[in-house]
Amino acid sequence: MAVVHTDVQQYKKCIDACNSCMQACEQCLTACLKEPDAAQRGRCVQLLRDCADICALASRVMSRGSDFAGAICRVCAEICEACAQECGRFQDEHCQECARECRACAEECRRMAA
Amino acid sequence: MAVVHTDVQQYKKCIDACNSCMQACEQCLTACLKEPDAAQRGRCVQLLRDCADICALASRVMSRGSDFAGAICRVCAEICEACAQECGRFQDEHCQECARECRACAEECRRMAA
Amino acid sequence: MAVVHTDVQQYKKCIDACNSCMQACEQCLTACLKEPDAAQRGRCVQLLRDCADICALASRVMSRGSDFAGAICRVCAEICEACAQECGRFQDEHCQECARECRACAEECRRMAA
Amino acid sequence: MAVVHTDVQQYKKCIDACNSCMQACEQCLTACLKEPDAAQRGRCVQLLRDCADICALASRVMSRGSDFAGAICRVCAEICEACAQECGRFQDEHCQECARECRACAEECRRMAA
Repeated sequence: MAVVHTDVQQYKKCIDACNSCMQACEQCLTACLKEPDAAQRGRCVQLLRDCADICALASRVMSRGSDFAGAICRVCAEICEACAQECGRFQDEHCQECARECRACAEECRRMAA
Repeated sequence: MAVVHTDVQQYKKCIDACNSCMQACEQCLTACLKEPDAAQRGRCVQLLRDCADICALASRVMSRGSDFAGAICRVCAEICEACAQECGRFQDEHCQECARECRACAEECRRMAA
Repeated sequence: MAVVHTDVQQYKKCIDACNSCMQACEQCLTACLKEPDAAQRGRCVQLLRDCADICALASRVMSRGSDFAGAICRVCAEICEACAQECGRFQDEHCQECARECRACAEECRRMAA
Repeated sequence: MAVVHTDVQQYKKCIDACNSCMQACEQCLTACLKEPDAAQRGRCVQLLRDCADICALASRVMSRGSDFAGAICRVCAEICEACAQECGRFQDEHCQECARECRACAEECRRMAA
């Protein structure tokens, strides 16, 4: 058990960042649909779907101590960056907050994958 | 192994319906975002997200022969029905096709859960 | 946005419990595979798979403010209870901790679904 | 809609391979737990969990026409190869069949990502 505990401890910060980013993406997507300019947010919604999905998966593979946690976190960082950039273009609170979460998650995932 | 094979055989039609419905929902959501009335489709998009998620889960738990396959298929049928009803309100091809997939999946899930 | 924020705030404790339970299940499953009596843990592993999956889904649908969050949390509570009972039969630390997480999550999910 | 339809058509074979591989992995994992040498299958079970997860995700992102479908299929191919190699070491029918599914899925994912 020692190995598993150490691994998961070491991943703890990245797992939390992924969970937090997934929540922000799911919530931001719901909020985007209610905005008056919802029709202009197609690309944003697409990225939020991908980002929520990959964050959820990254969190799980780290929790299980997978050999592929690094490979998945690398893709997660890439998607989080793209999502942060798109969300960052919108001035509403949920998009700005989501962009911050995505950037923080990308950073943790890069560190983890290094 | 016999038991597993029999179970999965027996679930085969419902697994296929869930996979097919998940695909239709993911594709329909993407297409809804590009429609001129995208802003009026908030509820539809919400239901498509839920429906794709629960269909994906139902497919997996049936594939693994889970004790909770019935309970999950029951919720899946409920969400598929709601999604079919909402998609059915829009006249474009992708919504009409998705509504059909949702109805077919709901029926298979109800049979499976019975 | 107020509605979304309020909903998610209200779900916060249950979302956290689901994320935490998902992590415990993924980690416990990995640890079970390394135990000397791994061959006796087939039912435990099956329940851990289901429990990790439904917790992950419950967390996401609450985060998005889904109309079906209650229905999914109801199934989640049921699966968490079954998993807690099975994990509770094993004396190692990871199973005991996972059983506690499952029980706590089941309670939050029942409250949320009520 | 034309673009979406074309994309998804083009992905069709790979989506089907991912769905089929996910099912094989879920089913094979359940069957591995019932084998007399279940205790020797820890690494196999770990890879089956990862493989089922990434196949399920790949299927969804292709269905939605995601910009990251290629990146995710690249990781999927890598995990499928590793899973095929490990499953291939066991002589029972479910592992041999799962290895075949994994190899076929890896090939489709590589083609798709190219």
